[in-house]
Amino acid sequence: MNEFDLIRQYFTRPTPRAVVGIGDDAALLSLSPGHQLAVSADMLVAGRHFFADADPERLGHKALAVNLSDLAAMGAKPSWFTLSLALPSVDADWLAAFSRGMFALADAHGIELVGGDTTKGPLTIAIQIAGEVETGARMLRSQAQLGDDIWVSGPLGAAAAAVMYRTGRVNLAAEVAARCDLRLDLPQPRVALGRAIRPLVHAAMDISDGLAGDLRHICQRSQCGARIEVDAVPAAPELAALPAELALEAKLAGGDDYELLFTAPTSARPQLAAIGQDLGLALSRIGQITAGAGVQFVGAAGETLDLGLGGFDHFRAP
Amino acid sequence: MNEFDLIRQYFTRPTPRAVVGIGDDAALLSLSPGHQLAVSADMLVAGRHFFADADPERLGHKALAVNLSDLAAMGAKPSWFTLSLALPSVDADWLAAFSRGMFALADAHGIELVGGDTTKGPLTIAIQIAGEVETGARMLRSQAQLGDDIWVSGPLGAAAAAVMYRTGRVNLAAEVAARCDLRLDLPQPRVALGRAIRPLVHAAMDISDGLAGDLRHICQRSQCGARIEVDAVPAAPELAALPAELALEAKLAGGDDYELLFTAPTSARPQLAAIGQDLGLALSRIGQITAGAGVQFVGAAGETLDLGLGGFDHFRAP
Repeated sequence: MNEFDLIRQYFTRPTPRAVVGIGDDAALLSLSPGHQLAVSADMLVAGRHFFADADPERLGHKALAVNLSDLAAMGAKPSWFTLSLALPSVDADWLAAFSRGMFALADAHGIELVGGDTTKGPLTIAIQIAGEVETGARMLRSQAQLGDDIWVSGPLGAAAAAVMYRTGRVNLAAEVAARCDLRLDLPQPRVALGRAIRPLVHAAMDISDGLAGDLRHICQRSQCGARIEVDAVPAAPELAALPAELALEAKLAGGDDYELLFTAPTSARPQLAAIGQDLGLALSRIGQITAGAGVQFVGAAGETLDLGLGGFDHFRAP
Repeated sequence: MNEFDLIRQYFTRPTPRAVVGIGDDAALLSLSPGHQLAVSADMLVAGRHFFADADPERLGHKALAVNLSDLAAMGAKPSWFTLSLALPSVDADWLAAFSRGMFALADAHGIELVGGDTTKGPLTIAIQIAGEVETGARMLRSQAQLGDDIWVSGPLGAAAAAVMYRTGRVNLAAEVAARCDLRLDLPQPRVALGRAIRPLVHAAMDISDGLAGDLRHICQRSQCGARIEVDAVPAAPELAALPAELALEAKLAGGDDYELLFTAPTSARPQLAAIGQDLGLALSRIGQITAGAGVQFVGAAGETLDLGLGGFDHFRAP
């Protein structure tokens, strides 16, 4: 099987929303009037973001999910993506499963693969995603305002618990570990949530590197501080099986949850609660934007906790 | 240096043409009225597309150049790009040179880096490029028409000669080898040419895998044949130093030239000649689109030559 057969067999599907899809030098895409383009890119590397023997169907899902999550955090409607794929060899079973996982998620969000590249090399998946958002929409990291509530979707920490289990830091019952694996391997990008909250919120981002580190980015870019009530941060039920300090680490600093973190004026509370109801998603108020700098964690009695938490840095020594 | 410092130091520059550039979950971009988006992606892998010790400044140029070339082949005006970069380690000298080479070419074309990803991993460069083209423009591989002239820009084969030299297939004087290296390492994407010929041509593509193989794509997608007069295909002057059969292979099947290959009605000859003059680019008529299938090469006496040439396939055994 050569490069062109491979693309035809596994990665060429109808692209009715594109003017020109796969197969030419570039795809041609038409933007809806009154919209601007939202563009993001993420790269997953074997041995770094996933094990080389990871289930390819789940990997196909996750590679696209992390990109969809970036558009969700902008309140954008995803439309198209490109895939650049380096493969050590052509493995038909692997490709069939990978593309099945990827396209299942693409279909669920109504988006189209419109181009990309395949080459021989260490297993690496680079996806670039493009979507549309109404011109003037600004759900940016820099827009948090003093007094804003800080919200998160979903319970946090199950993906981190899966990593702790796989790396031998914790022991979990098989059934609990399997549930955590699902959260790590098959994150559900909060696209509908991002669309729904867009008119109401100030700042937003997705939680990929952990709440503590990601919230720090909002504080830096909005030139503000944040005060988080630790007990208000929703923990995944699976964390009950962890020692207390690891459960805290998982929910506050664990990456890979791909929930949304956002700030909104207190006046938006009723509408945001209704959106959570409508979408069947838990939305939790976990603190406030403050005049200070950095993220302050407080306990049940209002005492400041020194947790020493940071986000994930790809170039930090392991 | 962590991931965020690295991005700030080497890859964050002003992006006046973007609504939101680097630093948020996604970039926000506004398209000009009456235009559609052209999107392409290319991935370069160390050990496959370049040697791991390749000059990083030239590598930064080339990684962007191959993407610009795809937009040139669509007649699009490049606007923005994203960069996903896997690095084995943080090497400040390498990053400074790589970003210098990349941004020098970006500046020459007035385009902006608006996002991407950096991670630890085997050296891999994945760029996605986006540009604008007038709505309705269709300079596609599928648009060749019976009787069209087939044109190429520039002399061909110098990049292939550099590869032949580096892999020990030919011996070249140092000065000749250095000139070939420049063509291989610093291809000049024909963006201005693509813009200028857009109203005149039918099919177009860039020559990345070799004239013979790339022309076959046009024939397949346009359901036509092509007849190429071998002597009319312009050879780089450096090929004079090669044995005749290798010179022929270099100009007809050598990849990495990134010149444009296009078809146009005979009525466009005077205008295309004038465009070549204006841009200071050699444009050559090398054959015709025929009613057959596949690419036929003919010699000076009109005899069919059996050259057994194919394009490059990344998954073919080396």
